[in-house]
Amino acid sequence: MMTRTRTGISELDEMLRGGFMKGDSAMVVGSTGTGKTILGLQYLVNGVTKFGENGIFVTFEQLPDTIYRDANSLGWDLRKIEREDKFRLVCTSPDLLLEAHDGEHLLDEPIRQIRPQRIVIDSLSHLEMYVKEGEVRKEAYRLVMYLRAKELSSLLTYESHQLTGETTALTEKGSSFIVDCIICLRFVEIESSMRKALVVLKLRGSDHDKRLREFEITSEGIKIGAPFSRYEGIMSGAPRKSWTEETVRSWTRAFEGKP
Amino acid sequence: MMTRTRTGISELDEMLRGGFMKGDSAMVVGSTGTGKTILGLQYLVNGVTKFGENGIFVTFEQLPDTIYRDANSLGWDLRKIEREDKFRLVCTSPDLLLEAHDGEHLLDEPIRQIRPQRIVIDSLSHLEMYVKEGEVRKEAYRLVMYLRAKELSSLLTYESHQLTGETTALTEKGSSFIVDCIICLRFVEIESSMRKALVVLKLRGSDHDKRLREFEITSEGIKIGAPFSRYEGIMSGAPRKSWTEETVRSWTRAFEGKP
Amino acid sequence: MMTRTRTGISELDEMLRGGFMKGDSAMVVGSTGTGKTILGLQYLVNGVTKFGENGIFVTFEQLPDTIYRDANSLGWDLRKIEREDKFRLVCTSPDLLLEAHDGEHLLDEPIRQIRPQRIVIDSLSHLEMYVKEGEVRKEAYRLVMYLRAKELSSLLTYESHQLTGETTALTEKGSSFIVDCIICLRFVEIESSMRKALVVLKLRGSDHDKRLREFEITSEGIKIGAPFSRYEGIMSGAPRKSWTEETVRSWTRAFEGKP
Amino acid sequence: MMTRTRTGISELDEMLRGGFMKGDSAMVVGSTGTGKTILGLQYLVNGVTKFGENGIFVTFEQLPDTIYRDANSLGWDLRKIEREDKFRLVCTSPDLLLEAHDGEHLLDEPIRQIRPQRIVIDSLSHLEMYVKEGEVRKEAYRLVMYLRAKELSSLLTYESHQLTGETTALTEKGSSFIVDCIICLRFVEIESSMRKALVVLKLRGSDHDKRLREFEITSEGIKIGAPFSRYEGIMSGAPRKSWTEETVRSWTRAFEGKP
Amino acid sequence: MMTRTRTGISELDEMLRGGFMKGDSAMVVGSTGTGKTILGLQYLVNGVTKFGENGIFVTFEQLPDTIYRDANSLGWDLRKIEREDKFRLVCTSPDLLLEAHDGEHLLDEPIRQIRPQRIVIDSLSHLEMYVKEGEVRKEAYRLVMYLRAKELSSLLTYESHQLTGETTALTEKGSSFIVDCIICLRFVEIESSMRKALVVLKLRGSDHDKRLREFEITSEGIKIGAPFSRYEGIMSGAPRKSWTEETVRSWTRAFEGKP
Amino acid sequence: MMTRTRTGISELDEMLRGGFMKGDSAMVVGSTGTGKTILGLQYLVNGVTKFGENGIFVTFEQLPDTIYRDANSLGWDLRKIEREDKFRLVCTSPDLLLEAHDGEHLLDEPIRQIRPQRIVIDSLSHLEMYVKEGEVRKEAYRLVMYLRAKELSSLLTYESHQLTGETTALTEKGSSFIVDCIICLRFVEIESSMRKALVVLKLRGSDHDKRLREFEITSEGIKIGAPFSRYEGIMSGAPRKSWTEETVRSWTRAFEGKP
Repeated sequence: MMTRTRTGISELDEMLRGGFMKGDSAMVVGSTGTGKTILGLQYLVNGVTKFGENGIFVTFEQLPDTIYRDANSLGWDLRKIEREDKFRLVCTSPDLLLEAHDGEHLLDEPIRQIRPQRIVIDSLSHLEMYVKEGEVRKEAYRLVMYLRAKELSSLLTYESHQLTGETTALTEKGSSFIVDCIICLRFVEIESSMRKALVVLKLRGSDHDKRLREFEITSEGIKIGAPFSRYEGIMSGAPRKSWTEETVRSWTRAFEGKP
Repeated sequence: MMTRTRTGISELDEMLRGGFMKGDSAMVVGSTGTGKTILGLQYLVNGVTKFGENGIFVTFEQLPDTIYRDANSLGWDLRKIEREDKFRLVCTSPDLLLEAHDGEHLLDEPIRQIRPQRIVIDSLSHLEMYVKEGEVRKEAYRLVMYLRAKELSSLLTYESHQLTGETTALTEKGSSFIVDCIICLRFVEIESSMRKALVVLKLRGSDHDKRLREFEITSEGIKIGAPFSRYEGIMSGAPRKSWTEETVRSWTRAFEGKP
Repeated sequence: MMTRTRTGISELDEMLRGGFMKGDSAMVVGSTGTGKTILGLQYLVNGVTKFGENGIFVTFEQLPDTIYRDANSLGWDLRKIEREDKFRLVCTSPDLLLEAHDGEHLLDEPIRQIRPQRIVIDSLSHLEMYVKEGEVRKEAYRLVMYLRAKELSSLLTYESHQLTGETTALTEKGSSFIVDCIICLRFVEIESSMRKALVVLKLRGSDHDKRLREFEITSEGIKIGAPFSRYEGIMSGAPRKSWTEETVRSWTRAFEGKP
Repeated sequence: MMTRTRTGISELDEMLRGGFMKGDSAMVVGSTGTGKTILGLQYLVNGVTKFGENGIFVTFEQLPDTIYRDANSLGWDLRKIEREDKFRLVCTSPDLLLEAHDGEHLLDEPIRQIRPQRIVIDSLSHLEMYVKEGEVRKEAYRLVMYLRAKELSSLLTYESHQLTGETTALTEKGSSFIVDCIICLRFVEIESSMRKALVVLKLRGSDHDKRLREFEITSEGIKIGAPFSRYEGIMSGAPRKSWTEETVRSWTRAFEGKP
Repeated sequence: MMTRTRTGISELDEMLRGGFMKGDSAMVVGSTGTGKTILGLQYLVNGVTKFGENGIFVTFEQLPDTIYRDANSLGWDLRKIEREDKFRLVCTSPDLLLEAHDGEHLLDEPIRQIRPQRIVIDSLSHLEMYVKEGEVRKEAYRLVMYLRAKELSSLLTYESHQLTGETTALTEKGSSFIVDCIICLRFVEIESSMRKALVVLKLRGSDHDKRLREFEITSEGIKIGAPFSRYEGIMSGAPRKSWTEETVRSWTRAFEGKP
Repeated sequence: MMTRTRTGISELDEMLRGGFMKGDSAMVVGSTGTGKTILGLQYLVNGVTKFGENGIFVTFEQLPDTIYRDANSLGWDLRKIEREDKFRLVCTSPDLLLEAHDGEHLLDEPIRQIRPQRIVIDSLSHLEMYVKEGEVRKEAYRLVMYLRAKELSSLLTYESHQLTGETTALTEKGSSFIVDCIICLRFVEIESSMRKALVVLKLRGSDHDKRLREFEITSEGIKIGAPFSRYEGIMSGAPRKSWTEETVRSWTRAFEGKP
């Protein structure tokens, strides 16, 4: 039986049948505004506060203040857990992350300092932009292998450019196969609102929930609700209501039952 | 609790749960004719007249007269507030905006003059055209960081080329992640008219209205109306009317209730 | 209150709430055969005959005879108003139009001769083909600014290659933002006929009709008819009939009203 | 009143309100197998046999025998009218057609010989393939102007690669604007058969039938039948049956008429 | 009256009104797995066994054993008819096929040996891959003309990459016009099975069946069944069931017939 | 009668009418997370444990541990059968696999050691990435021929980037024709869950099941369930429920049967 790394988001852990596989890499794919960064932060904060596991958040966005602030608005005091050596926010560029310097990797130092079990890379799509066409998979591989060697349960975010559409691809350069778990976040237009859906597409070595479930970003972070029902085409972002079997059957009965 | 920068468009402020985050960057995405420029002007004029906050409007369109005139037709006397040192219209080119000259940024001077709290860049898509492929994000970043350093609540417009279509992407070169808030304007064909829809897709650090709401450009500027209802696929611009649950239920009841 | 330049097509002027803004640029976008050239000619002929405003028609198609003939078939005697110095047909190439020669622009001469208030450029898409990739907007700008400086109310046609399709873009190289008004012409397949639809998408500084209206090219030129009704997806060119609310309601009432 | 050049296909002439404009260029667009070549041959044969107008058929396909044979199978004896100096089959390559040699155009000789009033170029899409990207329109122009100068009523075929599909473009390189008339042939899947539709999209200087009409290739050539009815999306090649107003109304009446 | 070359598949010969035109070229287009190769083999085997016409099968796949074996599994003993000098399997590469060597074409020898009347080239899409962009049509032409000169009734297969989809093109580089007959094979998802459809799109010089008919690959080769009915969009590969006129009419009658 | 290589997944063997053809190549195509690798492992493990046939698993993913672990979680002890010389896991790069070294192929050694009858290449899409554009088919061919020469029944996986969408292509560079059998795995959104479908598209020399059947990855590997029913468009990944004939008929009867 594999040890599981729990996200601390109870419904998600349930969907993952206990959590990610310890030491594995998960990818969270979604377009801008779907909540990938919040999911990453929540994974790390829960690690620290609920499971005693330290974590590193690597961001390529050059504005760490926003991250502290956003976390704050969700009740997560990143500076505090940083002072307690349970968390590190690493603000860097893709090239610095990918290249070793004198045999020393950029993450070696914070790993020595806080001995983390979790890490978030936000985001792999940034990284793709800085790497030459043919090198993406190789570099992403190297990174994932480094994280694995350090026995970190990693979560990598991936920003998909497409907001809605029938034809969906996960990633542009096919990096999806390097991860062990894929969670897909999608905007879904339902009843004239842009709601959000989450689905686990892959979890190597384990069963998982196959349902598309609605989620919201609340004042306490991501909250996963009930599965959708009576809709077709949710993954396209523009579902249509489907006739339920009951409706069709009850109509049939009604029609036939007439004298 | 974050301080909010109100747009002064009451329904929009309500949708934003009070307004933009002070000092943050918002992006307004929409195709030509959806009202991005008017939304930007209204944001600044309301700043001056309703909230005592000065503002700068940066345009890359070389015809400032049109802007004064259009504002006039909406009852906004830009020249008057400009004379009162509460507003500046900066007509420039993307390269001049992006490059500093002798350590002096093009906006330093008007910022010193009117000490603004708001700024509009109209538009980021123009800027994208003048920047080399690989440099777009970096340059857009630098600009956003400059605005942030000046403590300006900024609004950046973005012109999407696509008018309607099932597959939607926000921006061509993925600049959407540099902003804290995304408002999406869309043409929507309903009952054989090209009506307009507005939706807030993202608001970092805050809850927001998820509904697609209709809006109009009236003689007093943007006016947001009721949310759409009974339509599927609004984001595609070509929605279809959906069967309401009530209709289906009332039919079912009717059929079953027959003797 | 802005002065309006009336097209003389009464329904279109009504849709524009009086006409184009005097001195502004309008764009008429449509695929081949939708009637862009006729709309342009009608705009100029009506200027001369109904409003005492002279006009220039600039064509990049090298066959002026066809234009005289087509106008003739619609009852417009271009040669006559040309002799009266109220009209000029300028047959040129994009490069000649764009480049000044010894400080003299190609249009300076005819403008001096007939002192026009209207001009049609047929078409901007031809012009796009002759200009280098990165230069299109700049050149189109320069042209529009020249026309504006000459105080001409201009109408630019634009030929879209796509005949029908769900995903619609206005122009290929995004020149749509340089104009103040956009009128869109589309083929629409309705009841197995290729009919035509017209919609005003944008009118800077003014309200306008949002409805998609049917139009025909009659022996007297463009004639705009009633708005479409009971169709969804007209902009795609392949609309589907929609269930009317009345039908649904009357059925519901009928079902429920049964004993 | 313009003189018309009749095709001799009575329903088509009716759709064209008498025929093509004398001396103009028409384009017949359609995918392989829709009958473009047959339409072109029929146009010329009818010219000779019904209207006393001689004609030239220019083909870029290197197998003239097939053309003689196909014509034969439709009852048209091309060799006979060729012997009578009423017809010429010119088998050439695009470059030979486009380039003049010692001031002599390839078609000058046959034109002198038979003094034709009609010509068919089969096909413009072949020609596009042999011309450099930027030169297509210019070359097609030159050809059309040459034909016009020779006072020939020309018909140019164009092979579209796409068989079916919602998004339709007429031609790949936008040559459609050089012609005065556009006739579109399409495969249409109806009741599980690949039937054929014909529609006139454009006829400069004249009204025309807007309906999509079914046609067949019979043993006597093209035969145009009734317009389609009760279908939506014929132009896409994959129409769907639409609910008729009558059905909806008769149901409504039936439901309401119940006691 | 043209002589026909019968395929020996009775339903197909019926659809072709007797068979291919003798000496002409037919193309069979379909994605992998639709049965193009089997159709080609069956055409040749039937030639030998039913009509006393010898045949050559040219393959670019380097594994002739598979072809012998597959034929065997369908009851066709290729080695036997090869020994009887009634059949030749030519296993070659596109370049060897296209180039003559010392005035001798690769096929000259087997043609001399067995004096065939039929030939299959499997496949033209392989050939396209080995020929330079601009040369494809020319080379395909030369090949088809060579076959024609040898008085062979040829069948060329073409593998389309697309499995299903609304927008369909026959061939990538437009080689479809060089053939006299086009038969299209498609996967069609019906009642959750991937069934197969066959349609004749073109047959120069002859009428033909326009219906989309289902076919299967049985232990005796291709067997064509009934035409599809009650489906729309078969060519897309993902048809939808259509309401039949009868259903609508019988409902209407039922509703109206109520007291 | 061909000898069959059974997969040991009873429903799949049934769908294949007994299994793959011995010595042939099969391709399993699917997007990430559909279970291609598991299907490959199961094929080999069943070979060893159920049919006494040894097997080699070639992976280009550089992390063999994950494969051992995943297999373990499904109850397959790869290390054990490896120790027993019944199985080999070959972890290599595409170039090493493709190139021979001193006349020795990378797989020669393990083949000598365990004398396998089965092999899995995971995946062909990796291989495509390392081979130059024009060389893919040639190289894939060479590999398949090598495997065939070694009398191995091979299974090659192929990762398709597209998750869902109406237009489907099997492989990017058209390698699908080199294999004798194609099995397609697809995500299918049904009742708001991402379920999985399997279909056999091709099986050279044999009949096969044409139905799209649901499958799951259980704790014992792939388990194929019932065929789908009442859905249209399963291959697109976003099916819609179809009206059943029964429903329509029973309604019709009900309506007509009324007094």
